[in-house]
Amino acid sequence: MKIAIIGGNGKASSKIYEEAIKRGHEATAIVRNAEKAQAVLGEDAELLVKDGFALTKEDLTRFDVIVDAFGVPMGSPLAYLHMDLAAKLIHDLRDTDTRLLVIVGAASLNMPDGKPLIDQLLQAPGHEDWIGVPLNQSHELAILQMVDNVDWVAISPQRNFTPGIDTGYIMGSNDVMFDADGKSELTTGNMALAVLDELESPENHQERFTVRNADTE
Amino acid sequence: MKIAIIGGNGKASSKIYEEAIKRGHEATAIVRNAEKAQAVLGEDAELLVKDGFALTKEDLTRFDVIVDAFGVPMGSPLAYLHMDLAAKLIHDLRDTDTRLLVIVGAASLNMPDGKPLIDQLLQAPGHEDWIGVPLNQSHELAILQMVDNVDWVAISPQRNFTPGIDTGYIMGSNDVMFDADGKSELTTGNMALAVLDELESPENHQERFTVRNADTE
Repeated sequence: MKIAIIGGNGKASSKIYEEAIKRGHEATAIVRNAEKAQAVLGEDAELLVKDGFALTKEDLTRFDVIVDAFGVPMGSPLAYLHMDLAAKLIHDLRDTDTRLLVIVGAASLNMPDGKPLIDQLLQAPGHEDWIGVPLNQSHELAILQMVDNVDWVAISPQRNFTPGIDTGYIMGSNDVMFDADGKSELTTGNMALAVLDELESPENHQERFTVRNADTE
Repeated sequence: MKIAIIGGNGKASSKIYEEAIKRGHEATAIVRNAEKAQAVLGEDAELLVKDGFALTKEDLTRFDVIVDAFGVPMGSPLAYLHMDLAAKLIHDLRDTDTRLLVIVGAASLNMPDGKPLIDQLLQAPGHEDWIGVPLNQSHELAILQMVDNVDWVAISPQRNFTPGIDTGYIMGSNDVMFDADGKSELTTGNMALAVLDELESPENHQERFTVRNADTE
């Protein structure tokens, strides 16, 4: 499968790139800085060096799937680029055969009280300093949900989304998930497993799913 | 004021263009077809001939205001362009001094039962044939409401939005409005008055307002 990963040298996306290569797919990392990408993905990594907003419909539709793993750091004043890039990709992929998988963060997942986590985050003291990323990731999902002519799928990690290896995962839909110890956790390695499994055997169309780390013994 | 009107030769936008010229503003119609535009707006109309999605940040920010009056006909399979273009304009106008006024249709207004008109339209038999435009206009408003670093304003007409002259209007906020005869009506002429009044004396920032025809004697 021809898989392009936007933001391919980030913490989650580099794992997705590696997992895709491991499984024999033609993976391409779409990045702005070739040197940084090669430092993370290797000298011989397949790169498309271009700003996400400069990608054309032709750039995008030569892939079977676009994985939108674009992200800005927590607290960045550019958090709105999350929603803007999702909207741009949606526009280019309307009525095409290229699938769109978007990593949308955990803040749009529902808490046990039935309300989305973002509502709780918006009540936190000092949230103004860091709310941009989770808020705009929630907007990304809301925008995807307006779209019926792109084969999109969104995936949320858990509240704790940490660098780590693949140990297996459990799938959910729209709720924050907790392990046997009451923790809501996902490693980047398990995210990569879940993304590649979904791409190889699509189960979710025009909906969001989530995964957590499988329980250990 | 330098005012650009996207979709400048439509039924509402041509009235806005004419009203802007009448009041002495530098109005530019952004259109794809110069001949069609000149047939509606006159041989000497100021045009920027370009597809909306091809507009650059530089094209847009040389105006004080962008009026997004883009529209596709009811029933068009391209209704999604309403939301895609709004998202594109938002992206280009982030953190700039150019204001964005978007005509978002009436379907997002609340009915007397407190629910948006779009909910009622989605229940109508055969709505699949024509729901695209009102649905995507509602999406446009929802997307604008996610944006806090563009000076945007949205305006909704009434359920009956008809070609007609300027006779005066009454302003509302988020509810469908009814005149003394129980009709929810706005003429394109009154829309143009309301748009130019708002641009000359801004009253609504990052919110939507609506207008109806003033009652006649």
